Amino acid sequence: MKFRRSERIIDMTYYLLEHPHQLVSLTLFAERFGSAKSSISEDLAIIKETFEKRGIGTLQTVPGAAGGVKFYSRVNEQSAKDFIVDLCRQIENPERLLPGGYLYIMDLLGHPRIMNHVGKLLASAYAGEKIDAIMTVAAKGIPIAHAIASHLNVPVVVVRRDSKVTEGPTVSINYVSGSTKRIQAMVLSKRSLKEGSRVLLVDDFMKGGGTINGMISLLAEFNASVAGIAVLVEAEYPERLINDYISLVKLKDVNEKEAAISVVEGNYFSKNIDFLQEETK
Amino acid sequence: MKFRRSERIIDMTYYLLEHPHQLVSLTLFAERFGSAKSSISEDLAIIKETFEKRGIGTLQTVPGAAGGVKFYSRVNEQSAKDFIVDLCRQIENPERLLPGGYLYIMDLLGHPRIMNHVGKLLASAYAGEKIDAIMTVAAKGIPIAHAIASHLNVPVVVVRRDSKVTEGPTVSINYVSGSTKRIQAMVLSKRSLKEGSRVLLVDDFMKGGGTINGMISLLAEFNASVAGIAVLVEAEYPERLINDYISLVKLKDVNEKEAAISVVEGNYFSKNIDFLQEETK
Repeated sequence: MKFRRSERIIDMTYYLLEHPHQLVSLTLFAERFGSAKSSISEDLAIIKETFEKRGIGTLQTVPGAAGGVKFYSRVNEQSAKDFIVDLCRQIENPERLLPGGYLYIMDLLGHPRIMNHVGKLLASAYAGEKIDAIMTVAAKGIPIAHAIASHLNVPVVVVRRDSKVTEGPTVSINYVSGSTKRIQAMVLSKRSLKEGSRVLLVDDFMKGGGTINGMISLLAEFNASVAGIAVLVEAEYPERLINDYISLVKLKDVNEKEAAISVVEGNYFSKNIDFLQEETK
Repeated sequence: MKFRRSERIIDMTYYLLEHPHQLVSLTLFAERFGSAKSSISEDLAIIKETFEKRGIGTLQTVPGAAGGVKFYSRVNEQSAKDFIVDLCRQIENPERLLPGGYLYIMDLLGHPRIMNHVGKLLASAYAGEKIDAIMTVAAKGIPIAHAIASHLNVPVVVVRRDSKVTEGPTVSINYVSGSTKRIQAMVLSKRSLKEGSRVLLVDDFMKGGGTINGMISLLAEFNASVAGIAVLVEAEYPERLINDYISLVKLKDVNEKEAAISVVEGNYFSKNIDFLQEETK
């Protein structure tokens, strides 16, 4: 069977997008298409250039006999800005206001395109880190954790408030909620996380940081360490327990009486993220 | 700025994969690349042929002034078979056995590549249906629901066992668990589902079918209807409450004493799924 270059690059584009952060040997592609490695290298050069120009990501070439190519999801700064501005605009819609000053964001968490974009932005921020797993708390953090995981190609582990029979033996800890100061429990299945893992902690919303702190305590029980902390929305909070985190959106103020929500971009752009270069027009 | 064909088809491949089940006008691509629509049409013909040959999906062309092209995730039968055989082999590992005959499958639900493949298979099965939303029960069904949603480009709504302050007003129902005959509650945020929606119900595991039946009762409260029912694993069960569903894997028997799990493929291949044609070698 003979493949034209256009067929090869469509198939390779798909394959690389489906296998991020994974070394793909040139031999795999060469055999897949019955092509010389030199042709595959040329194809990959075109894909790399286009991926970077179009804000899709980048390819890293690993030389040598055991070498190959790795795809990393990355974004360019302007498209990240545009997305976050749009997210802020959506979140400050006063219809989201719930009694007690809470915000309804289940629709955003349930929207696959938005979640994929959130995942891509946060995965870009951690593209250079060694991450073995992503941890979140059931249930609202799960879509964000999976969205990031699909770009970083690492497993998701889910912490619960109570243990379930389908989880097997669990490790449980108590923690103090940062904002309400109540003591709560957190449970993780023993077999869900390997000892010594480097873990990215993820949640949809962070106020006092108690939930994130609970996850950190839980990591200690697994001799695991924090590789990073990423949240979709952080709320303005005086003495937060957590400092080193990335947020996409910051909730400045919620005025229930006036039905006004004030939202600004989070600290994403103050982090030293290696953005793709803008396309020159 | 000038684009070569290879650049155009890489970018269009990415764009289409990111926008499944959505009409994309040729004008969008023509303007994006400063190309004639006739060139774009040629590019799309190459992409369609390659997508079908390589088991990626298909493109449907909608003619006319308001026309364009739609991408649908689809699979070929052999790759679906291979995936399900591998899933069965993974699930029948006796190390998954938990006290009470339960199976540990959190690792599969946390694995982004497996979830994406599960989502692709189940989305393929419902590619021709009108689906407005996907509904699941927190927390284990969420990764599967999102995996399907990302291929069908529809929102996910999450039913909970108890209501949370961040969900606003909720609708609650009681239902009888199919296998344990206990009465349980199910809660859905009122604003999460539009009246009259056609909904795909999704869960990780189905035994008696009580949870699915609970979701059906909940749909009635929203004047919504069932567009389909999809589960990852069904367990052998005598008088199930649910008949018309799709499962990838069927749990025939769990023998705790012998530490033996018997797993076979689910009813996926007995459904009339429109598979992509095999690649001819």
